[in-house]
Amino acid sequence: MRIGYGIDFHQLVTGRDLFIGGVKIPHEKGALGHSDADVLLHAICDAMLGALSLGDIGVHFPDTSADFKDIDSKILLAKSYELIKAEGYSVVNIDASLCLEAPKIKPYVQQMREVIAGILEITVKDVSVKATTTEKMGFVGREEGLVAHAVCLLQKELSE
Amino acid sequence: MRIGYGIDFHQLVTGRDLFIGGVKIPHEKGALGHSDADVLLHAICDAMLGALSLGDIGVHFPDTSADFKDIDSKILLAKSYELIKAEGYSVVNIDASLCLEAPKIKPYVQQMREVIAGILEITVKDVSVKATTTEKMGFVGREEGLVAHAVCLLQKELSE
Amino acid sequence: MRIGYGIDFHQLVTGRDLFIGGVKIPHEKGALGHSDADVLLHAICDAMLGALSLGDIGVHFPDTSADFKDIDSKILLAKSYELIKAEGYSVVNIDASLCLEAPKIKPYVQQMREVIAGILEITVKDVSVKATTTEKMGFVGREEGLVAHAVCLLQKELSE
Repeated sequence: MRIGYGIDFHQLVTGRDLFIGGVKIPHEKGALGHSDADVLLHAICDAMLGALSLGDIGVHFPDTSADFKDIDSKILLAKSYELIKAEGYSVVNIDASLCLEAPKIKPYVQQMREVIAGILEITVKDVSVKATTTEKMGFVGREEGLVAHAVCLLQKELSE
Repeated sequence: MRIGYGIDFHQLVTGRDLFIGGVKIPHEKGALGHSDADVLLHAICDAMLGALSLGDIGVHFPDTSADFKDIDSKILLAKSYELIKAEGYSVVNIDASLCLEAPKIKPYVQQMREVIAGILEITVKDVSVKATTTEKMGFVGREEGLVAHAVCLLQKELSE
Repeated sequence: MRIGYGIDFHQLVTGRDLFIGGVKIPHEKGALGHSDADVLLHAICDAMLGALSLGDIGVHFPDTSADFKDIDSKILLAKSYELIKAEGYSVVNIDASLCLEAPKIKPYVQQMREVIAGILEITVKDVSVKATTTEKMGFVGREEGLVAHAVCLLQKELSE
């Protein structure tokens, strides 16, 4: 078994869509980034890559590459998972926490979990997405940006 | 085995008591919240709930419910643990880190660990509470608030 | 098996060297602290100590002690590891994330991993060091300081 941890940050700005956990969420601001800036999927990618010491999302999907401009982060998650599988590992479970002041993401959590579980070939029960405000404090509290933390547990698959 | 992660934030304000880890700590400020605002116990609840994808503390104990007004967070921890037990899991260990500028919590750490271990039916050796300042930086450094991070490892109990 | 989590913060100031992961990195600022202020090694120490509920780096290596003034944090990591070994545990893997705006640490990551793996008697494959900016937000974004998060998984060694 191996443990991984990921953290990701994005600014919230007008004129961008807000993607979190592979779901487009109606909001007056969106996350700024080279890709679709899905903070939750990026943290999960980093947790999985980190568990196997495969580098980080910036190494695999550099924001200087035109290949990843505005890319759907579900593709990055799928690519990260391919790297994990290639090493002979599967995901035991993922637990993620979003820090954002607004909007309320509770109505979208189940859909996020389904999206993530589908890509990672696990059940919805193995993917947790939680959320908290920072109680108006800091850049998250001022709605300048959002943060996601994710941990994962991976296990080596037994070969036949 | 399953992994969980929780993070919680509370403002520090005058006119409130400061509860951390189930212990009332003498300080000129206390944590603001709907419950007793125990940042450490809330992070641990979220880590345990997250490990089993049972939602988060805001889902189970909404701050819009009069039932949880000023509630002792030890009750929330006990309720979270009941949910874990009901799924057939026990706690292997918990490791938590408080980020706060003041007061020094070292004199209270042992008591916090005993409170938490007692509720979770584990030994004090299985509960770690650490603390750090943020070196005067950010809202924690300005003593506007405090943050707790917690991770936990759960294991499925063998049925007889 | 046991899980641990550590977080550490240091200010960036002129007139100090910048040590991260045991490597001296050329930069116009360095990290302020009582020791060499190696934020990454401190987070890893705390994760390992926390996994076994052995207190934290502030308890073992107090910043009020002349013994630790300007000390090389590799020594603190080695001492933390001795405490883990004395309890009969070894490190399964470590995954760490640095949050800093500058400098780019990618050219130094491999060397950091070698340093850490050497001290902890594990392979480079068992040590992950990742990095992210905070997208210009907060005290990290303003280059006032840097933060490191680390998780570890430990296992009990079987006695002969």
